[in-house]
Amino acid sequence: MTDTDDHKAKMQKLQEKHRARVAGASDPGRGLVLVHTGEGKGKSSSAFGVVIRALGWKKTVGVVQFIKGSWITGERQFFQRHGGVDWHTMGEGFTWDTQDRDRDIAAANAAFDKARAMMESGDYDLIVLDEINIALRYDYLSADQVLDGLKARSDRTGVILTGRDAPDAICAYADLVTEMTEVKHPFKAGIKAQRGVDF
Amino acid sequence: MTDTDDHKAKMQKLQEKHRARVAGASDPGRGLVLVHTGEGKGKSSSAFGVVIRALGWKKTVGVVQFIKGSWITGERQFFQRHGGVDWHTMGEGFTWDTQDRDRDIAAANAAFDKARAMMESGDYDLIVLDEINIALRYDYLSADQVLDGLKARSDRTGVILTGRDAPDAICAYADLVTEMTEVKHPFKAGIKAQRGVDF
Repeated sequence: MTDTDDHKAKMQKLQEKHRARVAGASDPGRGLVLVHTGEGKGKSSSAFGVVIRALGWKKTVGVVQFIKGSWITGERQFFQRHGGVDWHTMGEGFTWDTQDRDRDIAAANAAFDKARAMMESGDYDLIVLDEINIALRYDYLSADQVLDGLKARSDRTGVILTGRDAPDAICAYADLVTEMTEVKHPFKAGIKAQRGVDF
Repeated sequence: MTDTDDHKAKMQKLQEKHRARVAGASDPGRGLVLVHTGEGKGKSSSAFGVVIRALGWKKTVGVVQFIKGSWITGERQFFQRHGGVDWHTMGEGFTWDTQDRDRDIAAANAAFDKARAMMESGDYDLIVLDEINIALRYDYLSADQVLDGLKARSDRTGVILTGRDAPDAICAYADLVTEMTEVKHPFKAGIKAQRGVDF
Protein backbone atom coordinates (compact mmCIF):
# COMPACT_ATOMS: atom_id res chain seq x y z
CA MET A 1 0.00 0.00 0.00
CA THR A 2 1.40 3.44 -0.91
CA ASP A 3 1.51 6.37 1.52
CA THR A 4 -1.32 7.95 -0.41
CA ASP A 5 -3.52 4.86 -0.15
CA ASP A 6 -2.63 4.55 3.52
CA HIS A 7 -3.69 8.16 4.15
CA LYS A 8 -6.91 7.63 2.24
CA ALA A 9 -7.78 4.48 4.20
CA LYS A 10 -7.08 6.21 7.54
CA MET A 11 -9.21 9.18 6.56
CA GLN A 12 -12.07 6.94 5.43
CA LYS A 13 -12.08 5.29 8.85
CA LEU A 14 -12.03 8.71 10.55
CA GLN A 15 -14.90 9.85 8.34
CA GLU A 16 -16.99 6.77 9.26
CA LYS A 17 -16.32 7.38 12.94
CA HIS A 18 -17.26 11.04 12.63
CA ARG A 19 -20.47 10.24 10.72
CA ALA A 20 -21.52 7.64 13.27
CA ARG A 21 -21.00 10.16 16.04
CA VAL A 22 -23.04 12.82 14.25
CA ALA A 23 -25.82 10.31 13.45
CA GLY A 24 -25.99 9.32 17.13
CA ALA A 25 -26.33 12.90 18.30
CA SER A 26 -29.71 14.51 18.71
CA ASP A 27 -30.97 18.07 18.69
CA PRO A 28 -32.15 18.87 22.21
CA GLY A 29 -34.82 21.22 20.81
CA ARG A 30 -33.87 23.92 23.27
CA GLY A 31 -31.13 26.46 23.81
CA LEU A 32 -28.10 25.17 25.66
CA VAL A 33 -26.51 26.59 28.78
CA LEU A 34 -22.75 27.09 28.35
CA VAL A 35 -20.26 28.07 31.04
CA HIS A 36 -16.85 29.59 30.19
CA THR A 37 -14.68 29.55 33.29
CA GLY A 38 -11.08 29.03 34.48
CA GLU A 39 -8.11 31.29 35.16
CA GLY A 40 -7.11 31.63 31.51
CA LYS A 41 -8.08 34.13 28.85
CA GLY A 42 -10.79 33.66 26.24
CA LYS A 43 -13.85 33.34 28.47
CA SER A 44 -15.58 36.53 27.34
CA SER A 45 -13.95 36.70 23.92
CA SER A 46 -15.19 33.23 22.95
CA ALA A 47 -18.68 34.23 24.08
CA PHE A 48 -18.44 37.22 21.71
CA GLY A 49 -17.20 34.85 19.01
CA VAL A 50 -20.37 32.80 19.50
CA VAL A 51 -22.38 36.04 19.28
CA ILE A 52 -20.81 36.60 15.84
CA ARG A 53 -21.73 33.06 14.78
CA ALA A 54 -25.29 33.54 15.97
CA LEU A 55 -25.59 36.88 14.14
CA GLY A 56 -24.12 35.20 11.04
CA TRP A 57 -27.12 32.85 11.10
CA LYS A 58 -29.45 35.86 11.68
CA LYS A 59 -30.28 34.89 15.21
CA THR A 60 -31.30 37.42 17.87
CA VAL A 61 -28.76 38.10 20.59
CA GLY A 62 -28.67 39.91 23.92
CA VAL A 63 -25.71 40.69 26.21
CA VAL A 64 -25.75 41.73 29.85
CA GLN A 65 -22.38 42.74 31.33
CA PHE A 66 -22.25 42.32 35.10
CA ILE A 67 -18.89 43.84 35.99
CA LYS A 68 -17.53 46.10 33.31
CA GLY A 69 -18.88 49.57 33.92
CA SER A 70 -17.65 52.77 32.34
CA TRP A 71 -14.54 50.99 31.02
CA ILE A 72 -14.59 51.23 27.24
CA THR A 73 -14.04 47.89 25.54
CA GLY A 74 -13.52 46.99 21.91
CA GLU A 75 -16.50 44.63 21.91
CA ARG A 76 -18.84 47.31 23.21
CA GLN A 77 -17.66 49.86 20.65
CA PHE A 78 -17.98 47.30 17.87
CA PHE A 79 -21.52 46.28 18.70
CA GLN A 80 -22.60 49.86 19.38
CA ARG A 81 -21.53 50.80 15.87
CA HIS A 82 -22.70 47.59 14.24
CA GLY A 83 -26.05 47.26 16.02
CA GLY A 84 -28.00 44.00 16.02
CA VAL A 85 -27.27 43.10 19.63
CA ASP A 86 -29.42 44.14 22.58
CA TRP A 87 -26.49 45.28 24.75
CA HIS A 88 -26.65 46.19 28.44
CA THR A 89 -23.52 47.13 30.38
CA MET A 90 -24.91 47.25 33.90
CA GLY A 91 -21.90 46.75 36.16
CA GLU A 92 -20.31 49.54 38.12
CA GLY A 93 -16.74 48.53 37.31
CA PHE A 94 -14.28 46.28 39.05
CA THR A 95 -15.19 45.51 42.61
CA TRP A 96 -11.77 46.74 43.77
CA ASP A 97 -12.49 50.12 42.19
CA THR A 98 -16.03 50.66 43.49
CA GLN A 99 -15.12 49.57 47.04
CA ASP A 100 -18.77 49.71 47.94
CA ARG A 101 -20.38 46.34 48.53
CA ASP A 102 -23.97 47.61 48.76
CA ARG A 103 -23.65 49.42 45.46
CA ASP A 104 -22.11 46.33 43.84
CA ILE A 105 -24.95 44.13 45.12
CA ALA A 106 -27.59 46.56 43.88
CA ALA A 107 -25.91 46.77 40.44
CA ALA A 108 -25.59 42.97 40.12
CA ASN A 109 -29.24 42.45 41.07
CA ALA A 110 -30.47 45.10 38.66
CA ALA A 111 -28.41 43.41 35.93
CA PHE A 112 -29.82 39.99 36.79
CA ASP A 113 -33.42 41.28 36.86
CA LYS A 114 -32.84 42.57 33.34
CA ALA A 115 -31.20 39.27 32.29
CA ARG A 116 -34.04 37.20 33.77
CA ALA A 117 -36.69 39.24 31.94
CA MET A 118 -34.74 38.77 28.70
CA MET A 119 -34.37 35.00 29.24
CA GLU A 120 -38.10 34.58 29.92
CA SER A 121 -39.24 36.83 27.09
CA GLY A 122 -38.73 34.35 24.26
CA ASP A 123 -37.25 37.18 22.17
CA TYR A 124 -33.68 35.85 22.06
CA ASP A 125 -31.83 32.89 20.59
CA LEU A 126 -28.72 33.65 22.61
CA ILE A 127 -28.00 35.68 25.73
CA VAL A 128 -24.51 36.27 27.13
CA LEU A 129 -24.26 36.93 30.87
CA ASP A 130 -20.77 38.37 30.81
CA GLU A 131 -18.73 38.07 34.04
CA ILE A 132 -21.78 36.90 35.98
CA ASN A 133 -19.58 34.31 37.69
CA ILE A 134 -17.64 37.15 39.34
CA ALA A 135 -20.89 38.50 40.79
CA LEU A 136 -21.62 34.97 42.07
CA ARG A 137 -18.13 34.59 43.51
CA TYR A 138 -18.55 37.72 45.65
CA ASP A 139 -22.10 36.64 46.67
CA TYR A 140 -23.65 39.66 44.95
CA LEU A 141 -25.98 37.05 43.45
CA SER A 142 -26.85 33.58 44.77
CA ALA A 143 -26.41 30.42 42.68
CA ASP A 144 -30.08 29.54 43.42
CA GLN A 145 -31.26 32.87 42.09
CA VAL A 146 -29.31 32.38 38.86
CA LEU A 147 -30.42 28.74 38.48
CA ASP A 148 -34.06 29.81 38.90
CA GLY A 149 -33.60 32.34 36.14
CA LEU A 150 -31.92 29.83 33.82
CA LYS A 151 -34.70 27.29 34.40
CA ALA A 152 -37.34 29.91 33.65
CA ARG A 153 -35.76 30.75 30.29
CA SER A 154 -37.62 30.30 27.02
CA ASP A 155 -36.90 27.00 25.22
CA ARG A 156 -35.48 28.89 22.27
CA THR A 157 -32.90 30.74 24.37
CA GLY A 158 -29.32 29.57 24.81
CA VAL A 159 -27.28 31.23 27.56
CA ILE A 160 -23.53 31.66 28.03
CA LEU A 161 -22.22 32.51 31.51
CA THR A 162 -18.64 33.78 31.70
CA GLY A 163 -16.11 34.47 34.45
CA ARG A 164 -13.72 32.56 36.65
CA ASP A 165 -14.86 30.45 39.61
CA ALA A 166 -18.23 29.36 38.19
CA PRO A 167 -20.17 27.77 41.10
CA ASP A 168 -20.54 23.97 41.07
CA ALA A 169 -24.34 24.18 41.08
CA ILE A 170 -24.29 26.20 37.85
CA CYS A 171 -21.77 23.85 36.21
CA ALA A 172 -23.86 20.83 37.20
CA TYR A 173 -26.91 22.37 35.48
CA ALA A 174 -25.03 23.53 32.35
CA ASP A 175 -24.89 21.49 29.14
CA LEU A 176 -21.30 22.49 28.47
CA VAL A 177 -18.53 23.74 30.73
CA THR A 178 -15.27 24.87 29.17
CA GLU A 179 -12.28 25.73 31.28
CA MET A 180 -9.69 28.14 29.92
CA THR A 181 -6.25 27.48 31.37
CA GLU A 182 -3.29 29.82 31.33
CA VAL A 183 -0.27 28.04 29.94
CA LYS A 184 1.71 31.20 29.25
CA HIS A 185 0.41 34.66 30.13
CA PRO A 186 2.04 37.86 28.80
CA PHE A 187 0.64 39.95 31.64
CA LYS A 188 2.44 37.82 34.23
CA ALA A 189 5.55 37.95 32.10
CA GLY A 190 5.37 41.76 32.41
CA ILE A 191 3.55 42.64 29.20
CA LYS A 192 0.77 45.19 29.47
CA ALA A 193 -2.81 44.32 28.55
CA GLN A 194 -3.37 45.48 24.97
CA ARG A 195 -6.27 47.33 23.38
CA GLY A 196 -8.01 45.18 20.82
CA VAL A 197 -6.68 41.98 22.34
CA ASP A 198 -7.42 41.99 26.06
CA PHE A 199 -10.36 44.41 26.06
CA MET B 1 -15.08 47.22 62.01
CA THR B 2 -18.39 46.76 60.17
CA ASP B 3 -18.85 44.37 57.24
CA THR B 4 -18.96 47.38 54.93
CA ASP B 5 -15.66 48.79 56.23
CA ASP B 6 -14.13 45.33 56.03
CA HIS B 7 -15.20 44.99 52.38
CA LYS B 8 -13.84 48.44 51.59
CA ALA B 9 -10.48 47.70 53.23
CA LYS B 10 -10.16 44.37 51.34
CA MET B 11 -11.01 46.04 48.05
CA GLN B 12 -8.49 48.84 48.67
CA LYS B 13 -5.78 46.23 49.14
CA LEU B 14 -6.87 44.44 45.96
CA GLN B 15 -6.84 47.75 44.07
CA GLU B 16 -3.28 48.53 45.26
CA LYS B 17 -2.14 45.06 44.19
CA HIS B 18 -3.78 45.44 40.80
CA ARG B 19 -2.27 48.91 40.24
CA ALA B 20 1.20 47.72 41.17
CA ARG B 21 0.88 44.85 38.70
CA VAL B 22 -0.28 47.17 35.91
CA ALA B 23 2.50 49.68 36.70
CA GLY B 24 5.09 46.89 36.49
CA ALA B 25 3.87 45.71 33.10
CA SER B 26 5.31 47.13 29.93
CA ASP B 27 4.07 47.48 26.39
CA PRO B 28 6.21 45.19 24.22
CA GLY B 29 5.83 47.57 21.28
CA ARG B 30 5.00 44.73 18.92
CA GLY B 31 2.08 42.50 18.14
CA LEU B 32 1.85 39.39 20.31
CA VAL B 33 1.63 35.79 19.17
CA LEU B 34 -1.25 33.95 20.82
CA VAL B 35 -2.00 30.23 20.63
CA HIS B 36 -5.47 28.82 21.39
CA THR B 37 -5.22 25.06 21.76
CA GLY B 38 -6.59 22.10 23.74
CA GLU B 39 -9.42 19.61 23.26
CA GLY B 40 -12.14 21.97 24.45
CA LYS B 41 -14.33 24.42 22.59
CA GLY B 42 -13.69 28.14 22.25
CA LYS B 43 -10.39 28.12 20.34
CA SER B 44 -11.71 29.69 17.13
CA SER B 45 -14.62 31.52 18.72
CA SER B 46 -12.37 33.38 21.15
CA ALA B 47 -10.13 34.36 18.22
CA PHE B 48 -13.20 35.82 16.52
CA GLY B 49 -14.05 37.57 19.80
CA VAL B 50 -10.61 39.20 19.70
CA VAL B 51 -11.30 40.18 16.06
CA ILE B 52 -14.40 42.02 17.30
CA ARG B 53 -12.36 43.80 19.98
CA ALA B 54 -9.75 44.82 17.43
CA LEU B 55 -12.42 46.12 15.03
CA GLY B 56 -14.01 47.98 17.94
CA TRP B 57 -10.71 49.89 18.28
CA LYS B 58 -10.66 50.42 14.47
CA LYS B 59 -7.71 48.11 13.94
CA THR B 60 -7.14 46.24 10.67
CA VAL B 61 -7.74 42.51 10.72
CA GLY B 62 -7.10 39.55 8.43
CA VAL B 63 -8.23 35.93 8.75
CA VAL B 64 -6.91 32.85 6.95
CA GLN B 65 -8.85 29.64 7.51
CA PHE B 66 -6.73 26.53 6.96
CA ILE B 67 -9.28 23.72 7.24
CA LYS B 68 -12.84 24.90 6.82
CA GLY B 69 -13.63 24.80 3.12
CA SER B 70 -17.06 25.03 1.56
CA TRP B 71 -18.66 24.54 4.95
CA ILE B 72 -20.78 27.61 5.71
CA THR B 73 -20.11 29.05 9.14
CA GLY B 74 -21.81 31.81 11.07
CA GLU B 75 -18.57 33.75 11.45
CA ARG B 76 -17.94 33.74 7.72
CA GLN B 77 -21.46 34.89 6.92
CA PHE B 78 -21.25 37.61 9.54
CA PHE B 79 -17.96 39.05 8.31
CA GLN B 80 -18.99 38.74 4.65
CA ARG B 81 -22.03 40.89 5.35
CA HIS B 82 -20.30 43.23 7.77
CA GLY B 83 -17.07 43.72 5.84
CA GLY B 84 -13.96 45.20 7.47
CA VAL B 85 -12.03 41.91 7.67
CA ASP B 86 -9.72 40.61 4.95
CA TRP B 87 -11.11 37.06 4.99
CA HIS B 88 -9.60 34.04 3.23
CA THR B 89 -11.12 30.59 3.60
CA MET B 90 -8.49 28.48 1.88
CA GLY B 91 -8.95 24.99 3.30
CA GLU B 92 -10.51 22.17 1.34
CA GLY B 93 -12.63 20.92 4.22
CA PHE B 94 -12.00 18.34 6.89
CA THR B 95 -9.13 16.04 6.13
CA TRP B 96 -11.38 13.00 6.61
CA ASP B 97 -13.68 14.33 3.90
CA THR B 98 -11.07 15.23 1.28
CA GLN B 99 -9.18 11.93 1.75
CA ASP B 100 -6.46 13.25 -0.53
CA ARG B 101 -3.20 14.06 1.23
CA ASP B 102 -1.54 15.78 -1.72
CA ARG B 103 -4.49 18.09 -2.20
CA ASP B 104 -4.56 18.88 1.54
CA ILE B 105 -0.83 19.69 1.53
CA ALA B 106 -1.18 21.94 -1.50
CA ALA B 107 -4.16 23.76 0.07
CA ALA B 108 -2.37 24.25 3.41
CA ASN B 109 0.74 25.62 1.71
CA ALA B 110 -1.23 27.99 -0.49
CA ALA B 111 -3.00 29.23 2.66
CA PHE B 112 0.29 29.69 4.49
CA ASP B 113 1.88 31.56 1.57
CA LYS B 114 -1.05 33.95 1.71
CA ALA B 115 -0.76 34.24 5.51
CA ARG B 116 2.98 34.87 5.34
CA ALA B 117 2.58 37.65 2.79
CA MET B 118 -0.09 39.23 4.99
CA MET B 119 2.10 38.97 8.13
CA GLU B 120 5.05 40.59 6.35
CA SER B 121 3.04 43.33 4.64
CA GLY B 122 2.65 45.60 7.66
CA ASP B 123 -0.98 46.15 6.67
CA TYR B 124 -2.56 44.37 9.63
CA ASP B 125 -2.80 44.83 13.38
CA LEU B 126 -4.18 41.32 13.86
CA ILE B 127 -4.16 38.15 11.76
CA VAL B 128 -5.99 34.96 12.75
CA LEU B 129 -4.57 31.70 11.38
CA ASP B 130 -7.66 29.61 12.03
CA GLU B 131 -7.11 25.85 12.51
CA ILE B 132 -3.49 26.12 11.38
CA ASN B 133 -2.52 23.76 14.22
CA ILE B 134 -4.52 21.01 12.47
CA ALA B 135 -2.45 21.51 9.32
CA LEU B 136 0.68 21.27 11.49
CA ARG B 137 -0.58 18.17 13.25
CA TYR B 138 -0.97 16.32 9.94
CA ASP B 139 2.42 17.61 8.72
CA TYR B 140 0.82 19.57 5.89
CA LEU B 141 3.00 22.40 7.17
CA SER B 142 6.19 22.19 9.23
CA ALA B 143 6.65 23.98 12.55
CA ASP B 144 9.85 25.57 11.18
CA GLN B 145 8.01 26.96 8.19
CA VAL B 146 5.37 28.54 10.43
CA LEU B 147 7.98 29.87 12.90
CA ASP B 148 9.89 31.49 10.03
CA GLY B 149 6.72 33.20 8.90
CA LEU B 150 5.88 34.41 12.42
CA LYS B 151 9.39 35.79 12.92
CA ALA B 152 9.18 37.63 9.59
CA ARG B 153 5.95 39.38 10.61
CA SER B 154 5.70 43.15 10.83
CA ASP B 155 6.17 44.55 14.36
CA ARG B 156 2.67 45.96 14.32
CA THR B 157 1.06 42.58 13.60
CA GLY B 158 -0.31 40.30 16.30
CA VAL B 159 -1.15 36.73 15.31
CA ILE B 160 -3.53 34.15 16.78
CA LEU B 161 -3.03 30.48 15.87
CA THR B 162 -5.94 28.16 16.66
CA GLY B 163 -6.51 24.41 16.70
CA ARG B 164 -5.80 21.46 18.94
CA ASP B 165 -2.33 19.92 19.31
CA ALA B 166 -0.28 23.09 18.81
CA PRO B 167 3.36 22.00 18.36
CA ASP B 168 5.75 22.64 21.28
CA ALA B 169 8.05 24.78 19.12
CA ILE B 170 5.19 27.17 18.32
CA CYS B 171 4.06 27.32 21.96
CA ALA B 172 7.64 28.04 23.08
CA TYR B 173 7.80 31.00 20.69
CA ALA B 174 4.32 32.36 21.51
CA ASP B 175 3.72 35.12 24.07
CA LEU B 176 0.52 33.51 25.30
CA VAL B 177 -0.78 29.97 25.14
CA THR B 178 -4.31 29.25 26.32
CA GLU B 179 -5.60 25.73 26.62
CA MET B 180 -9.33 25.13 26.35
CA THR B 181 -10.38 22.05 28.31
CA GLU B 182 -13.61 20.18 27.94
CA VAL B 183 -15.24 19.76 31.32
CA LYS B 184 -18.67 18.86 29.97
CA HIS B 185 -19.34 18.51 26.24
CA PRO B 186 -22.90 18.31 24.84
CA PHE B 187 -21.73 16.57 21.67
CA LYS B 188 -20.31 13.68 23.70
CA ALA B 189 -23.49 13.63 25.75
CA GLY B 190 -25.36 13.06 22.47
CA ILE B 191 -26.38 16.60 21.62
CA LYS B 192 -25.94 17.70 18.02
CA ALA B 193 -23.66 20.59 17.10
CA GLN B 194 -25.83 23.70 16.79
CA ARG B 195 -25.88 26.46 14.20
CA GLY B 196 -24.85 29.76 15.69
CA VAL B 197 -23.09 28.10 18.60
CA ASP B 198 -20.70 25.49 17.26
CA PHE B 199 -20.18 26.90 13.77
